[in-house]
Amino acid sequence: MAIDVYDPPALTPGVLRVIPLGGVGEIGRNMTVYEIDGKLLIVDVGVLFPEEHQPGVDLILPDFAAIRDRLDDVLGVVLTHGHEDHIGAVPYLLKLRQDIPLYGSRLTLALVEAKLKEHRVAPITRVVAEGEHTELGPFALEFVAVNHSIPDALAVVVRTAAGLVLHTGDFKMDQLPLDARITDLRAFARLGEEGVDLFLPDSTNADVPGFTALEREIGPTIERVIAKAPRRVIVASFSSHVHRVQQVLDAAVANERHVALVGRSMVRNMGIAADLGYLKVPDGVLVDLKTALELPDDRIVFMSTGSQGEPMAVLARMANNDHRIEVGQGDTVILASSLIPGNENAVYRVINGLTKLGANVVHKGNARVHVSGHAAAGELLYCYNIIRPRNVFPVHGEYRQLTASAELAVETGVPRERTIVAENGVVLDLHEGVANVVGQLDVGYVYVDGSTVGEITDADLKDRRILAEEGFISIFVAIDRQTGKVIVGPEIQARGFAEDESVFDDVRPQIVAALAEAARNGVTDQHGYSQAVRRTVGRWVNTQHRRRPMIIPVVIEA
Amino acid sequence: MAIDVYDPPALTPGVLRVIPLGGVGEIGRNMTVYEIDGKLLIVDVGVLFPEEHQPGVDLILPDFAAIRDRLDDVLGVVLTHGHEDHIGAVPYLLKLRQDIPLYGSRLTLALVEAKLKEHRVAPITRVVAEGEHTELGPFALEFVAVNHSIPDALAVVVRTAAGLVLHTGDFKMDQLPLDARITDLRAFARLGEEGVDLFLPDSTNADVPGFTALEREIGPTIERVIAKAPRRVIVASFSSHVHRVQQVLDAAVANERHVALVGRSMVRNMGIAADLGYLKVPDGVLVDLKTALELPDDRIVFMSTGSQGEPMAVLARMANNDHRIEVGQGDTVILASSLIPGNENAVYRVINGLTKLGANVVHKGNARVHVSGHAAAGELLYCYNIIRPRNVFPVHGEYRQLTASAELAVETGVPRERTIVAENGVVLDLHEGVANVVGQLDVGYVYVDGSTVGEITDADLKDRRILAEEGFISIFVAIDRQTGKVIVGPEIQARGFAEDESVFDDVRPQIVAALAEAARNGVTDQHGYSQAVRRTVGRWVNTQHRRRPMIIPVVIEA
Repeated sequence: MAIDVYDPPALTPGVLRVIPLGGVGEIGRNMTVYEIDGKLLIVDVGVLFPEEHQPGVDLILPDFAAIRDRLDDVLGVVLTHGHEDHIGAVPYLLKLRQDIPLYGSRLTLALVEAKLKEHRVAPITRVVAEGEHTELGPFALEFVAVNHSIPDALAVVVRTAAGLVLHTGDFKMDQLPLDARITDLRAFARLGEEGVDLFLPDSTNADVPGFTALEREIGPTIERVIAKAPRRVIVASFSSHVHRVQQVLDAAVANERHVALVGRSMVRNMGIAADLGYLKVPDGVLVDLKTALELPDDRIVFMSTGSQGEPMAVLARMANNDHRIEVGQGDTVILASSLIPGNENAVYRVINGLTKLGANVVHKGNARVHVSGHAAAGELLYCYNIIRPRNVFPVHGEYRQLTASAELAVETGVPRERTIVAENGVVLDLHEGVANVVGQLDVGYVYVDGSTVGEITDADLKDRRILAEEGFISIFVAIDRQTGKVIVGPEIQARGFAEDESVFDDVRPQIVAALAEAARNGVTDQHGYSQAVRRTVGRWVNTQHRRRPMIIPVVIEA
Repeated sequence: MAIDVYDPPALTPGVLRVIPLGGVGEIGRNMTVYEIDGKLLIVDVGVLFPEEHQPGVDLILPDFAAIRDRLDDVLGVVLTHGHEDHIGAVPYLLKLRQDIPLYGSRLTLALVEAKLKEHRVAPITRVVAEGEHTELGPFALEFVAVNHSIPDALAVVVRTAAGLVLHTGDFKMDQLPLDARITDLRAFARLGEEGVDLFLPDSTNADVPGFTALEREIGPTIERVIAKAPRRVIVASFSSHVHRVQQVLDAAVANERHVALVGRSMVRNMGIAADLGYLKVPDGVLVDLKTALELPDDRIVFMSTGSQGEPMAVLARMANNDHRIEVGQGDTVILASSLIPGNENAVYRVINGLTKLGANVVHKGNARVHVSGHAAAGELLYCYNIIRPRNVFPVHGEYRQLTASAELAVETGVPRERTIVAENGVVLDLHEGVANVVGQLDVGYVYVDGSTVGEITDADLKDRRILAEEGFISIFVAIDRQTGKVIVGPEIQARGFAEDESVFDDVRPQIVAALAEAARNGVTDQHGYSQAVRRTVGRWVNTQHRRRPMIIPVVIEA
């Protein structure tokens, strides 16, 4: 459903304006803009991955239009953690203004810098840590430790003349995380005492009842599977999941196996995590792929990417027998990851392929090899109760999850009218402890396809979907302007319609006749002749085939 | 992975040959051919629904090629139950030979006849029931009651000179089904005592641990939700799920609500089920849609289709505010169905849409509103133990599920070498208590698109995928054969590539130049000139856009 777009009033001094450009009403491309007294602060600049109705799109960016001519007023970008849906669009923002300072934890900034290097951008960075305070013009920032599926994640407190905002970024409340770095509920409590005027919680799992299981419960499962594995073990997971990889390393050591990291992003990210001390690599456990391939089958674990069935990733290529690691009878594959909606068929194709090759495939469906990185309903209740926010604006979720998160807030005593369930582009003004919706911007999707940004539009995607469903028929014909007599053609080209070209034999004469008739009826222009061709072919394809391919007439007057 | 295709030897008298043409290595288009002494028996003729990599395909049929010139030897088709993946392709088979007798239960045949009516085919039908025996030439058939997510399902026992085959069709072992018609384990035990030489079990849920919950556990949940619902209730489920609808009718009555059936297939199937007494309709509970729309909100339940997010189905249209039933604040929607892999994003879009409209959406993810129709691992173990088959050929499943089913057989004592995990087109010969693979036919996908059957090929689908990912650029140019000088054009048409036509301005002169150069290099034929255009545009698009659209040059020599 389209939403009503309307402009907000001019921003009055001392009022804080909050505008999410992404991540509200969707899972991905998180980006929130804060403005007060003419200055802007941005929290996260992520990418969204396309769904099946966005074919050929590589990435989807937040729509920067709302801030394009305000870039000089941006005092900084805070990055809560190093996942693509929070940092992936930073290179595209910095291409608009390269010297925007980036604030984030050590690991987060290291991952961003590696990414920016590939885009040949050298950013200005400011490393911050939990407990730290930073002044950015009218914005007084405080950083709070949160636990997530990547280390060193931070929530950010934004204090301004308008009040206190707590923006969690992605988080969960694992009480026994591998790095003992828990979500700082003491800080949440202290902030609650001080008074949180606006709370923006990660709501990804707000519709999941109960509590997220402990990450450390996965280690023993992986260890048992590896201990029982007669031959090679391949573990696939997310290339940024340092603690998951840590557990695989430890399980490998316990079973006297070496580990080879496979896949560009896995090698790059774990290299960074190890250099900075977030990944503890036991001496001698890591070997390169070449060495690994020469080790005995029962002495190696391959740690790879591709747990979502991505066709070009390592695991899918193994499943197609198209990788140097040849999976065979007795091998064990562990998919230590979630199954992101929309990827099911791709993942099941990979599982079937690996099973056919003789592998025993262990996954979420048959073993505890994954836990989510997001707080479930039970954990969110803890947060709402300990913070007791005056206003709640659930973010990081589709509409159903934002609604669920707001319901949890209401159950803990937040007045319903102080919960805001909205979508990208909503304009919130915070003033004297009350947050109100004062506008709704029209924020679109910005598609990255190949090297082009924003060149592909929704109209192009609509065409692509039609082409995918029906294919096309193009008709080239050169005619005499006066008589409509065909001089060259009709030359018919079709793709995705029918392999046998002879199907068009009976429509060609109809086209010739239609052009002559159009001329008799006084048509003299290209448009009129094209319409005649379109109508003729359209009628023919509908009656003969009950199909609706795209019809593209090209009539040239010679 | 491609599988090795090889012809089976000529079939010797007294040997039973089994060839699955669908449903083995996939979920859908179930069809198995049995042959002995020159006569054929077919069990099920279903359709498969396309996945996202088969865009625009309406249905996928089993490949009839293997039996196309044997149709006169077919003594009959046994239909185990009335689901589309078991009966959906019957009309297409009967178009090849209309007088093949169809055997099945009352409900199954009634559903088939309704379907055939739409295809204007009047079949020859023979109603059979559990416990019944039928002689079909060399095939002695016995029918056994099984419980499934549609009433009146049958397993079939095929006795021939070669031994006894038990073909379950889809089934589960609900011990307290609504119609008290349980899977007949006594018959399975008796057959086990007699000796089952070949067992073909439904393996859809073989990789699901434990037991399928009781269908009747859903009723109370639905009843509670309806009891609490302040306004309208909309329940969406499968249009053939008689017992699910029965529970909705009963829950509606208990809450003094009327029920309106919405959606063509729902109305048709439930009409049949009610006429035959499978659906017990409490007096006066059913009303038509027009009446329903005039009833008070808290007095009506709409029972609709579309639980899989099918864009054209009732529920998706409601979610888009594009249906006479206008969903609003306080309405309750129950998705009483499974979530078939691949449909997740579509279903979540529907849930988000309904939530935005103010509806409370109850689904599998947050309530017990669905149980599967297939036996889980625990139930299959009962079957294997009570039947103790000599040979096991798991069917109805993807490779991972067939493998899981075979493993269960092995755990109950079936020798591994007597379990056959194969794919469509495998040729099994049963002789003296031993089933062996003796061949592998090349069985393809037969695509139905619009009114065409088999016209769309895999090559067309590949083209469609490329068009979907990248769009196309077609270049029309008329040239002088000798000089390559352009007389008309280059006329460039593109779709799904870029909305702004001006992107092509810089490539047109390159095309003109390339054609002239081609002529200088001695090119004189259309193909050579076309290649020159293709190379030029391909190089341009790759360097300028890093993309790979389909490039279609049309060079005409004037």
